[in-house]
Amino acid sequence: MSLHPYYNAENHGPYEIINIGDLDLACGKTLHNCELAVATHGQLNENKDNAILIPTWYSGTSKIIQDVFIGTGRAIDPDKYFVIIVNQIGNGLSSSPHNTLGIYAKAGFPTISIADDVTAQHRLVTEHLGLTKLALVMGGSMGAQQTYEWAVRYPSMVDRMAAIAGTARTSDINKIIADTIIHGLRTDPSFSHGDYVDSQAVSAGLTQHARLMTLYGLSASFFEQQHYKPLGFDSVEAFFEGFMKPYFSPMDPNNLITMLEKWRAVDVSALEGGNLRAALGRITAKALIMPISQDMFFPPSMCLAEAEMIKDAVFYASSSPSGHLGLFGVDGDWIREVDNQLAELLGRK
Amino acid sequence: MSLHPYYNAENHGPYEIINIGDLDLACGKTLHNCELAVATHGQLNENKDNAILIPTWYSGTSKIIQDVFIGTGRAIDPDKYFVIIVNQIGNGLSSSPHNTLGIYAKAGFPTISIADDVTAQHRLVTEHLGLTKLALVMGGSMGAQQTYEWAVRYPSMVDRMAAIAGTARTSDINKIIADTIIHGLRTDPSFSHGDYVDSQAVSAGLTQHARLMTLYGLSASFFEQQHYKPLGFDSVEAFFEGFMKPYFSPMDPNNLITMLEKWRAVDVSALEGGNLRAALGRITAKALIMPISQDMFFPPSMCLAEAEMIKDAVFYASSSPSGHLGLFGVDGDWIREVDNQLAELLGRK
Repeated sequence: MSLHPYYNAENHGPYEIINIGDLDLACGKTLHNCELAVATHGQLNENKDNAILIPTWYSGTSKIIQDVFIGTGRAIDPDKYFVIIVNQIGNGLSSSPHNTLGIYAKAGFPTISIADDVTAQHRLVTEHLGLTKLALVMGGSMGAQQTYEWAVRYPSMVDRMAAIAGTARTSDINKIIADTIIHGLRTDPSFSHGDYVDSQAVSAGLTQHARLMTLYGLSASFFEQQHYKPLGFDSVEAFFEGFMKPYFSPMDPNNLITMLEKWRAVDVSALEGGNLRAALGRITAKALIMPISQDMFFPPSMCLAEAEMIKDAVFYASSSPSGHLGLFGVDGDWIREVDNQLAELLGRK
Repeated sequence: MSLHPYYNAENHGPYEIINIGDLDLACGKTLHNCELAVATHGQLNENKDNAILIPTWYSGTSKIIQDVFIGTGRAIDPDKYFVIIVNQIGNGLSSSPHNTLGIYAKAGFPTISIADDVTAQHRLVTEHLGLTKLALVMGGSMGAQQTYEWAVRYPSMVDRMAAIAGTARTSDINKIIADTIIHGLRTDPSFSHGDYVDSQAVSAGLTQHARLMTLYGLSASFFEQQHYKPLGFDSVEAFFEGFMKPYFSPMDPNNLITMLEKWRAVDVSALEGGNLRAALGRITAKALIMPISQDMFFPPSMCLAEAEMIKDAVFYASSSPSGHLGLFGVDGDWIREVDNQLAELLGRK
């Protein structure tokens, strides 16, 4: 139903819209006729034990997940696995502020939590796809955070998990980062308390959003070693104007804020009354915890501390000068590291 | 003349206001009756060869410079040296948007460059203090950037230089940081294009400014290792609300923007047509180049590259979990490192 020039199948397809019905949210409200945009690759086998679930990261869609992780001959091989990519609520393809009508439209959209996404995904894979097991749940960034929520909330369903460049609980400093990004969007006068007609009118706020993604999304070495040059940009300014700004600016501010507030509140320990060790202790999945060493959002030390609370976890600190946005997959060496680690995880006995 | 509740001698004194006359600026305008707020410690000796000049850093004043660097028995000892601390133009004590009348008042204040500050300081020390030599020019952050400008512009006057946590040229990514901070101040509706009556009305913009100083001013290890706890704060939020926000929020947005635009444009290579190696090659001072390893504004690798272009430079990468704001002096180990390195520099033959 979206007529938004960015959030459509031409840019992000193919995907199927699946109505999972009314979703009772952690905030106490109910999201009626919750729609999930789902892209699948490969076939479910007879034993129904080859399904891989990949939730999306902040501002990303199923398209970039496919481009970065999936391919014949790669670890996530559609010839061997039934891969299910679910777009997170608020990302512009699934139910989101910009494509919802009525009182939940735009800034009226309710607060969504990672738990809501995982509850919705659970209903999708059990009731709509008839699955009782997931061979692997994996994701990067907020996708890793949904992966943690899956492994803690539904441990018996998750055989393996891979949390890439993400944590089970958002750090306090990450909350200030989220506040800063949200503030940058909301204080654009054209944001009009979220009631803008054209999202592109919020250009100053979206430019500030792109600046902050540039400052925290990459790394000091990315700029010092001029890793933007192999991408075809002669200067940091050219990289910002030619890549970061055009990449993030077509997005919808209310959608972004829905995801930022979700990110800000991530804490799987809520399932154990705030006890992170007890929550991560629930995990029975064979786990790969794989931060990016240069990541400014999710530092490896935090990921290591969480990995040590998981029974069967392999911790692997990958390296990419692109920092957190190594997830974009432009760094071939990093992609090879990911494939090697995922292959090891999928082969682990 | 300032009636501002923050920029006065009660908070930042003692200092003397010295009118150095009309200052022709790099931007082409003239700052009439340029006033420099100057704090001195100790006495000039008969040979007039014991003078140390310390310009201030971004948002700081002569008061914090005194507290962090100067003391009997320390490297910068007022019993041995005549220490001259000059408040940079725009910092609220020297000529600044908030204390200037007429067309240059508030947002009408002209663009100031580091070269303007150093030219003004040169006039002060030569014409008003009668000095022909400076035993040491030193500073942290933008104070280091003024130190570089001194050593390149007036090499024969500068016997020794110490550039702490700063670079001779602002990096491209630092320009995006500056743009982000400036944007945060300017987009507060109460900023009113700089024509606000009460600077404290710009509270949303000043809070965003404090957030960005928190995100870039400190370091990942500061938060991961909870170094805010020894400062008396139980959480990152308490540290932000109880320290960072109250520290930066009393400041004047137009003053801050004047310093940010100055910072953004720093480039000593302008004295050699953009050739940084040629500009730093002018330096004859015995130099100490001392970054902070965890600094997110001025990474050690950039400082090392500049040190290698200086004839007689000692490079020393100091360490503080406080990152750039190690300059605040709350980290006793770091202060000892600074004193040791400055003593070595002052004793170097």
